Amino acid sequence: MSNAEASLEHLFRVFTMPEHKDSTLSRIEQHLSDNLSDFLSRHVVAKKTSLESIEKDFSTASLPQRPEFVSEFADQLLDKLVAHSVNTYAPTFIGHMTSALPYFHLSLAKLLVGLNQNLVKIETSKAFTPLERQVLGMMHNLVYGKSDAFYEQYLHSANHSLGAFCSGGTIANMTALWVARNKCLGPKPGFAGVTKAGLASAYRAYGINELGIVSSKRGHYSLAKAADLLGMGRNNLHTLNHNEQTLDPDAVRTFAKQYAAQGNQLLAIVGVAGTTETGHIDPLDELADVAEELGCWFHVDAAWGGATLFSDTHRAKLKGIERADSVTLDAHKQMYVPMGAGMALFKDPKHSSAVRHHAQYILREGSKDLGATTLEGSRNGMAMMVYSSLHVLGKSGYELLIDQSIDKAQHFAQMITAHCEFELVTEPTLSLLTYRLVPQDVQKALLADISDADKTMLNEQINALTKAIQKQQREAGKSFVSRTRLSVQAYGHDCLTVFRVVIANPLTTQAHLSSILTEQTEIAAILPEYTAVCKTAEKLIKKCSISTEQATLQAHL
Amino acid sequence: MSNAEASLEHLFRVFTMPEHKDSTLSRIEQHLSDNLSDFLSRHVVAKKTSLESIEKDFSTASLPQRPEFVSEFADQLLDKLVAHSVNTYAPTFIGHMTSALPYFHLSLAKLLVGLNQNLVKIETSKAFTPLERQVLGMMHNLVYGKSDAFYEQYLHSANHSLGAFCSGGTIANMTALWVARNKCLGPKPGFAGVTKAGLASAYRAYGINELGIVSSKRGHYSLAKAADLLGMGRNNLHTLNHNEQTLDPDAVRTFAKQYAAQGNQLLAIVGVAGTTETGHIDPLDELADVAEELGCWFHVDAAWGGATLFSDTHRAKLKGIERADSVTLDAHKQMYVPMGAGMALFKDPKHSSAVRHHAQYILREGSKDLGATTLEGSRNGMAMMVYSSLHVLGKSGYELLIDQSIDKAQHFAQMITAHCEFELVTEPTLSLLTYRLVPQDVQKALLADISDADKTMLNEQINALTKAIQKQQREAGKSFVSRTRLSVQAYGHDCLTVFRVVIANPLTTQAHLSSILTEQTEIAAILPEYTAVCKTAEKLIKKCSISTEQATLQAHL
Repeated sequence: MSNAEASLEHLFRVFTMPEHKDSTLSRIEQHLSDNLSDFLSRHVVAKKTSLESIEKDFSTASLPQRPEFVSEFADQLLDKLVAHSVNTYAPTFIGHMTSALPYFHLSLAKLLVGLNQNLVKIETSKAFTPLERQVLGMMHNLVYGKSDAFYEQYLHSANHSLGAFCSGGTIANMTALWVARNKCLGPKPGFAGVTKAGLASAYRAYGINELGIVSSKRGHYSLAKAADLLGMGRNNLHTLNHNEQTLDPDAVRTFAKQYAAQGNQLLAIVGVAGTTETGHIDPLDELADVAEELGCWFHVDAAWGGATLFSDTHRAKLKGIERADSVTLDAHKQMYVPMGAGMALFKDPKHSSAVRHHAQYILREGSKDLGATTLEGSRNGMAMMVYSSLHVLGKSGYELLIDQSIDKAQHFAQMITAHCEFELVTEPTLSLLTYRLVPQDVQKALLADISDADKTMLNEQINALTKAIQKQQREAGKSFVSRTRLSVQAYGHDCLTVFRVVIANPLTTQAHLSSILTEQTEIAAILPEYTAVCKTAEKLIKKCSISTEQATLQAHL
Repeated sequence: MSNAEASLEHLFRVFTMPEHKDSTLSRIEQHLSDNLSDFLSRHVVAKKTSLESIEKDFSTASLPQRPEFVSEFADQLLDKLVAHSVNTYAPTFIGHMTSALPYFHLSLAKLLVGLNQNLVKIETSKAFTPLERQVLGMMHNLVYGKSDAFYEQYLHSANHSLGAFCSGGTIANMTALWVARNKCLGPKPGFAGVTKAGLASAYRAYGINELGIVSSKRGHYSLAKAADLLGMGRNNLHTLNHNEQTLDPDAVRTFAKQYAAQGNQLLAIVGVAGTTETGHIDPLDELADVAEELGCWFHVDAAWGGATLFSDTHRAKLKGIERADSVTLDAHKQMYVPMGAGMALFKDPKHSSAVRHHAQYILREGSKDLGATTLEGSRNGMAMMVYSSLHVLGKSGYELLIDQSIDKAQHFAQMITAHCEFELVTEPTLSLLTYRLVPQDVQKALLADISDADKTMLNEQINALTKAIQKQQREAGKSFVSRTRLSVQAYGHDCLTVFRVVIANPLTTQAHLSSILTEQTEIAAILPEYTAVCKTAEKLIKKCSISTEQATLQAHL
């Protein structure tokens, strides 16, 4: 057999022959299916490995020339990739929003690739298109709760859409603001509309100086990206109330008046329902009032917190979301679907027409191709994962998951408050909270009558300690909390580095949470940053008590 | 056990217990693994099912209340979803760019979900970040072929990136043009740059009336979407040479001069390397010359054709691509990776800094988080699929696949030309071609000395026939070709409806191609549109021969 023939046979096998049952890849699969947790704990190496040393395994830009056998390759995949991945399934991985997933997603992932549909158009997706429309309808129903007649009319209407499925919350936010922008600066006599004529012409036609967005400082970074992308400019994303966690409706009112007086137009108010950093929820209902008064778009970024609507106990926290013109949801967060399932929902099914587009070979006028109103083009059938989860977990299953996460976060907050070395920085609104480790003596110093400058100095040393603990804990690989920086009112708005915790993994128990605190105290105890901040605190307390003694002495004299 | 406890147990099982080996879902999985082709041909019902009837299965927007057992649910999934999906694996499905995939992707899909990494940041992806950077490096190398030293310097550099991985070509095109726009209208003394200040201010600062993009009329519809999204307006995407298949560099030169004279600025020339409709490739090298002369950005949309670079035989067709400032590639097209693997590559690793952004809790300055320069936020680890394919198929495997596809397309073109009832409309440049069925008598009429109006009338009837055949063939479910509309020079630029064929599936044989033609002639034979166009042709020929006879008679008199 010639080389070419051999290569051809190899290729043909790759496309038509499954791997042998004893092959490495089949064994990986079997292990995943039998016991995902065991697979991960065996193969993900829980030890300090520097990024630089991992990079060495991925250091060449040369293309592999000759084909490799799948099994040989799979061995390498285990050693190089899986070994140094992050165990997001682990119940002690509570630093970000990715967590354990239901088992059935493993099988569905295989089905998804086996079917390999493209949802941009019906010709390459068929039943997946109605399915995705139904999923959007169900989520629309969860948020807006319109009548049966409403959904009957719009669910499968070619000229309407209840939302856009997309890869994630960033694209969802962009899609919503894109629709808002194109609606706001639409066609009018003598002007073709921003879609066709562009933003500069639109500003001239509408006599606008700048077009702006308002959100709290805790708004997701994708809002600034959207302002950039859409041509409004990052400076026109105005984050108000820098000293508070949520957006104050009165501040928006005041801002909007000033903004308009300067010849600008407020495009949208963005309320956040569950900020990524602290979980706070803006006062949505009051913000909806302001948007109504001002006649501007109201968008709610509920990428994280949207699933709270499944809970009868907690959904009131999002009151007013049903008045939003558009809402962002991420099913890959609290709906426990694999990465890549975002949605932008629209209250009015006609709104998405503001970004409708056609092509000759697909998305023809009057077709039901989903691609006609999405920002993305070709997309896979991730909606099947959401559909399946909605069925297998049901509304009541999601309710239980949400309730449990919030309960656990509240318990964890109590644990932190009760612990002599920890300080809770932000209370959990949903299942996110922030805290830090503050040695007891340092706590005393912070409470003592020391100067603001001294407090700031102490906080800076605690920041260094927090950062060091977080890095060590991450690198040790047993557990993971993230860190962020927050300006905190109690400390004169000093910017503090804090641990950030997201309680979402249903497998996380109170014992896990307790072990994370223990590990942090153990790591801290031997860190130079710990000794340093304690020494500073000691000095400050001494200085303070000397001055108190002096004051007492002076009072006696 | 109470209801709540039962629900809790169900939930816990869903997250921790694999499906039983005899469960429906396990059986689906096993079947997929053992014989994907058989699974699809058994479960995908190859019969006419109207979209409306499929929609009935997905008609309610009510949320499922109670949890369902996975196996009961899986049965429904087979009946409602899989049954009415499109068999993209089938070798007779040659209408779009989705095709059979190598088997190992089924297992990898499961691994991907099992690991569920989020590539926006290293903290949730670790080894996947260097892996994705390596994949971008390899593809960059394929396109630009820079030195080893270059890749050593930039592959893992925190402040540089060789490209952005994304969900598909649309996002890749948007990313590239976003970078181009932000570079073009960057900061300068007295101006903060478009990123911060927005487009309207940028036009004022740079004294620009409009900012435009030039492409051929065959440019992908995502270019218009990008012009809209980025605030330039769809009218500022200028498609030149409406009567030709590719973009004429001289026409661009002429246009750019006029455009500048009107106070406008040309942002970018977009060359297409493999148009989605016909596979044509713009003269990239000459367009690069023009871009250089004009000092504007040169982007190449090689979403479809980029993989041609693997072939030493055919890569010269893309000569000049290595001069592009940015290039779009889709691995889910001719690289046989599942849906969701697009890339925007940048010649200069500093360019992506034009869209760099940071956040407090991730993407910190100096970090290697991939999310700092991507349009999307959270993303899954699809780069692993590209990485694996590059290893298992190798450069030589891809070369063989590309060569074979082009060979097959050329053979198919010969088959069409040789067939008495078919007309080849566009020759295959790569592996795309268009054609139509024209009954023999109709061919005669078109060749006869009939008026242009009569030709147009005939073409309109053939259009109706083409549309009817395509729909019937699609609905019959055995095979699938797509259709599009093209203005064709040979017919005075009449807009013709044509069959569009994409030969990419390695499993497609000449016998399959032949059977598709046979099926089309069989479908056509009994269509009223066939009879109608034949009758018209007959009349026209009669009229024509009468006038010829009259002319001959008059000549004799």
